[in-house]
Amino acid sequence: MTSKKVIELFYDVVSPYSWLAFEVMCRYRTVWNIDLKLRPAFLGGVMQGSGNKPPGLVPNKFLWMNHDLARLAVYFNVPLRPPSDPAEAMFRKGSLNAMRFIKAVQEKETGGDQQVEKVSRELWRRIWSEDKDITEPASLAEAAQKAGLGRSEIEELQKLCTTPEIKDKLKSSTQDALEYGAFGFPMMVCHINGKAKMFFGSDRFEVMAHCLGEKWLGPQPAHHERSSAKL
Amino acid sequence: MTSKKVIELFYDVVSPYSWLAFEVMCRYRTVWNIDLKLRPAFLGGVMQGSGNKPPGLVPNKFLWMNHDLARLAVYFNVPLRPPSDPAEAMFRKGSLNAMRFIKAVQEKETGGDQQVEKVSRELWRRIWSEDKDITEPASLAEAAQKAGLGRSEIEELQKLCTTPEIKDKLKSSTQDALEYGAFGFPMMVCHINGKAKMFFGSDRFEVMAHCLGEKWLGPQPAHHERSSAKL
Repeated sequence: MTSKKVIELFYDVVSPYSWLAFEVMCRYRTVWNIDLKLRPAFLGGVMQGSGNKPPGLVPNKFLWMNHDLARLAVYFNVPLRPPSDPAEAMFRKGSLNAMRFIKAVQEKETGGDQQVEKVSRELWRRIWSEDKDITEPASLAEAAQKAGLGRSEIEELQKLCTTPEIKDKLKSSTQDALEYGAFGFPMMVCHINGKAKMFFGSDRFEVMAHCLGEKWLGPQPAHHERSSAKL
Repeated sequence: MTSKKVIELFYDVVSPYSWLAFEVMCRYRTVWNIDLKLRPAFLGGVMQGSGNKPPGLVPNKFLWMNHDLARLAVYFNVPLRPPSDPAEAMFRKGSLNAMRFIKAVQEKETGGDQQVEKVSRELWRRIWSEDKDITEPASLAEAAQKAGLGRSEIEELQKLCTTPEIKDKLKSSTQDALEYGAFGFPMMVCHINGKAKMFFGSDRFEVMAHCLGEKWLGPQPAHHERSSAKL
């Protein structure tokens, strides 16, 4: 028996490519011999800290991303649909409240990260599938409710997510991402034989598998996700 | 019998990711039912025309690219090694002469593109494996010689590649790339049922296969390339 290799997945629900990587990695938890650690962080902080600019500012790159995401959504079986005004949703409204909320969920959860997984997925579903807000307290509460959290639990999280403690924890995860070399999300850090190997993007699974000594078997069926038929 | 699907591959030998895509697509000529059209073009013109900036300007992105290219080189079995001064090789010296030379080879070649393939590979090998110049006439001649071209043929190409005709042909291919939506290389355009589908990068083969109705079988053995042992 070999011990499980740890993979940290840094993500932000504002990033559609992160959603693809998140679903693939969640599916591969039961395919590869890995221990997946979800690391919600703030993409805005990573862009600022690394000096990177959003790819959508180059018109041809923006057009390509739209085609690319539509194809990848089908191929990876993730119900991804761009919001009607991506710049409004991604840059003007942003994801700071949403990521603080997820961080609060992570802080309260004990014995795993099932709630973090479910709440993250519901928030992605709102912004990147249903063209809904992810900034207002009512939006966060609705996502948490769909993820199976109770009313009093959600009220407690709403209070927690505006505390300096949670703000600092999100900053700290974002800083960790920058120190691993992030300039965008998704970013995965594989801990192999005492070394941290960083992979950027949702298009390196094949090479990552090779480094892990595992096999890339393509996108797997969406077992654990609420099906798109129920949207 | 279905007719072969045409895939245009736009590339520049200054781009290491283009080398990976070039070798993979050359290998897949005999794996998929495709007709590969090599489209040498000028990356500098594509970056300028699309308003894109080189990724290496963001320090974390530059570090990632170095790791990423090293891993991909092993995984794809392409003898890729960064030049000692990448900025000097890629930006200050650049690839305009090299791409005009390749364009001249393409202009003279009849009945296929074996020479274009071989000369392109030898130029990649110089800049992206052996840390050698690709701007001087003697450098281009050496690459052409290794690709199997004769002395008089090379002299003719040296003259041809500085003519307005060849300069315009390279501009025209670069313009074609921009019109297909390029903002960098490699870019592949798959012609499927009368529609042109664009793919950017050397990391979409799996999705491209899906669109083509073919199977991605991973990087194939390097049959047709001069082996790295002979470097």
